[in-house]
Amino acid sequence: MSALPPALSDSLRNRFGERFSTAQALREQHGRGESHHTPAIPDAVVFAESTDDVAEAVRLCAAEGVPVIAFGTGTSLEGHLTAVRGGVSVDLSRMSKIVRISAEDLDCTVEAGVTREQLNTHLRDMGLFFPIDPGANASIGGMAATRASGTNAVRYGTMRENVLSLTVVLPNGQVIRTGGRARKSSAGYDLTRLFVGSEGTLGIITEVTLRLYGIPETISAALCSFESVEQAVAAAITVVQLGIPVARMELMDRGLIEAVNAYSSLSLKVEDTLAFEFHGSPAGVKEQVEMVAAIVEDNGGRDFEWANAPEDRNRLWKARHNAFYAVVSQRPNAKGWSSDVCVPVSELSGCIVRTRELLRDCSVPAAILGHVGDGNYHVVFAVDPANQAELDEVAAINKKMVQHAISVGGTSTGEHGVGTGKIAYLRQEHGDAVDLMAIIKNAIDPAGIMNPGKILPSQDLPSRRETL
Amino acid sequence: MSALPPALSDSLRNRFGERFSTAQALREQHGRGESHHTPAIPDAVVFAESTDDVAEAVRLCAAEGVPVIAFGTGTSLEGHLTAVRGGVSVDLSRMSKIVRISAEDLDCTVEAGVTREQLNTHLRDMGLFFPIDPGANASIGGMAATRASGTNAVRYGTMRENVLSLTVVLPNGQVIRTGGRARKSSAGYDLTRLFVGSEGTLGIITEVTLRLYGIPETISAALCSFESVEQAVAAAITVVQLGIPVARMELMDRGLIEAVNAYSSLSLKVEDTLAFEFHGSPAGVKEQVEMVAAIVEDNGGRDFEWANAPEDRNRLWKARHNAFYAVVSQRPNAKGWSSDVCVPVSELSGCIVRTRELLRDCSVPAAILGHVGDGNYHVVFAVDPANQAELDEVAAINKKMVQHAISVGGTSTGEHGVGTGKIAYLRQEHGDAVDLMAIIKNAIDPAGIMNPGKILPSQDLPSRRETL
Repeated sequence: MSALPPALSDSLRNRFGERFSTAQALREQHGRGESHHTPAIPDAVVFAESTDDVAEAVRLCAAEGVPVIAFGTGTSLEGHLTAVRGGVSVDLSRMSKIVRISAEDLDCTVEAGVTREQLNTHLRDMGLFFPIDPGANASIGGMAATRASGTNAVRYGTMRENVLSLTVVLPNGQVIRTGGRARKSSAGYDLTRLFVGSEGTLGIITEVTLRLYGIPETISAALCSFESVEQAVAAAITVVQLGIPVARMELMDRGLIEAVNAYSSLSLKVEDTLAFEFHGSPAGVKEQVEMVAAIVEDNGGRDFEWANAPEDRNRLWKARHNAFYAVVSQRPNAKGWSSDVCVPVSELSGCIVRTRELLRDCSVPAAILGHVGDGNYHVVFAVDPANQAELDEVAAINKKMVQHAISVGGTSTGEHGVGTGKIAYLRQEHGDAVDLMAIIKNAIDPAGIMNPGKILPSQDLPSRRETL
Repeated sequence: MSALPPALSDSLRNRFGERFSTAQALREQHGRGESHHTPAIPDAVVFAESTDDVAEAVRLCAAEGVPVIAFGTGTSLEGHLTAVRGGVSVDLSRMSKIVRISAEDLDCTVEAGVTREQLNTHLRDMGLFFPIDPGANASIGGMAATRASGTNAVRYGTMRENVLSLTVVLPNGQVIRTGGRARKSSAGYDLTRLFVGSEGTLGIITEVTLRLYGIPETISAALCSFESVEQAVAAAITVVQLGIPVARMELMDRGLIEAVNAYSSLSLKVEDTLAFEFHGSPAGVKEQVEMVAAIVEDNGGRDFEWANAPEDRNRLWKARHNAFYAVVSQRPNAKGWSSDVCVPVSELSGCIVRTRELLRDCSVPAAILGHVGDGNYHVVFAVDPANQAELDEVAAINKKMVQHAISVGGTSTGEHGVGTGKIAYLRQEHGDAVDLMAIIKNAIDPAGIMNPGKILPSQDLPSRRETL
């Protein structure tokens, strides 16, 4: 049953009517993401339809010191949505309006619940697209909150580079806009970037202004097989170091290709593979392809398989996007556990060699994939969440990967966020800078009601759960 | 005479010896930038040679509640360096070591006092360059602190996009590193971006890790004349909207060309002009040039004048970089006052038409120049700083420009920063988000010793000057 203070239940029900719910099934659905993390269900769910709704929900919760957790599409991989101290899940999925699009300025403003596929479907007829693409059909608000990126980041950057401004509800219910629509500004602290990646711990993002891009004149995709992961990575590193502006450059190891073939009914060659996409003018794409082909050949890569028709390309990238689900589906009742280290490109090869050694004796099915142009790669493990020995085994491998990545100047998480899953590594990665993060958190959210238990190692937050 | 507490003078002298000075001439030199803002001299200057030096200077000042102002090259345009509440200027110009360069990862770490020209001279033989280029030969630390950009930003972004991490001395003397060397990370709050653009009000940047780029295979520059500024701007907007990846696209009005010709002994055609630079492969540059040439012709532009030899290009951009000094030098004893609005590109034409109307009856010599690809442009006024009527006249014009820019979604400052000059507009631009900036400032610098009187409209800061 819901542990909300009765006064808060009453005021939320008064304000939101049927959009306030304490139904068990709904709460369960809102207390988890898509990964192995143990769910923790909120006490209630509110379906917001406007920034005002969010502000009012936050205000009412703040008055009672009750935690508030923003929910978009539920595709988090690091436990961001778990209500570890109870509270109210504010579901933003109904905030799905595309507020404005400027083709002239190549920007748009959307409500936080708009998904990336919804946005791109809408943009297509205007000859525009939004490149950031974390695989899952995540909400734009969630992508901003986790500083998401994905396959196109090597060319177009991440949410960090592509959010122009945000509308945010602060922990006291105040609504702010973090910036304007100018491409650049030196007017004060960069609040936009402070909220991008803050995972709902400083406020709730309700609207996002994004940069857009013209759909390239020519788009060309290709797969290329290698005899080993190491060769594929060596080719990828050279492409980056020569500054060839590939739009996508994705590593998929042999095991991943098997999983993807089975899950998406494809018949890709079962080899360690790089998948490329090239964007540009016809001449520009031709030039990129020639340079990349030469590099691939130098590194023992074999025959490009082209996917130039839009439907072939879409099938290829859809399969890649479903890679996480493909690995998990190989095993009944499994959950996915995805590592997410990101390192300087010169360290990538060494990291992957080490990772493959770690995986050699691993009892849990696992596959490697990665946005290798950014130095970011994942191992997806299909774990049995009821088997503690398995969870411990994967945790130990993940820990070694993270610690090595940090030791070579990399990060514990390139794009999934800290959530609850990477908290233990934050101080190793950032040292005393973590204290500064805590100072900022405590100044903006002194009562600690915004998505408590995420990002920061420990906080002296008042928690209804603990005090009840 | 210095108003420092004697105990602080003693401890700074003990620690820094001859690198601590209260000499009048030195203090005067450290209390001003390059613009019209009234100087305010610090009580002393410390020459730091290491992060530890800076940390110790800050710690000693903090113990006495004395303000600390970071100083790089003194090229600020918005009064950042004025010691409006006295205190100690920490001069970082001797921190000029290039700490490391990784050609493989296209990044480097430099001390804050390294200037952009010094860095690029060092990088040239490695085939690398750092593109951010505010005109002045500023320090990298100062460029990070003001979120600087300049002529290359249309292609390469600003300091916001090109700083990977920072070493920062906090107001209590603690030293943090804000990030690692991975190209992307979702590990916690984006402290790097919080300090980029914080103008020394949250801490002192002592080291900067930057992204680098390979020197393009082909670089080509050209000037193109138009019958009016409006036509030049129309051409520039089309180039942006078609996504042509020009590296530079600079507007220089007729008046500016006159000033530049006189100052740099050039004989550029005295017309409203766009200056372009193209980077890429030979074929890529050719393609860009053809597209731009067609757009220019459509907008009534006349004959490209090419500057493809490196020495011609260097002469052209050096002249452009000296534009501010060129305008100011037209009038004896004048000071430069540069406006700095930045607007969505679709609003640029309207803004410039209004600006030219405002300038029509202006009694102060003025010229327009701009990074028009970003929607950012400047009016440089050559003002007599002793003539209050002139200062008032320019202030009134600047105010109208800023208010209009903000009303169309733009910003009061695209790249110069707030300093003391734009404080009055901060709330109009950011609304209640200014309160959040103040919360952050007060949490990180509760005693208000870091470059007080900059960025934020008013703060209840303890000030030795006021309490003495």
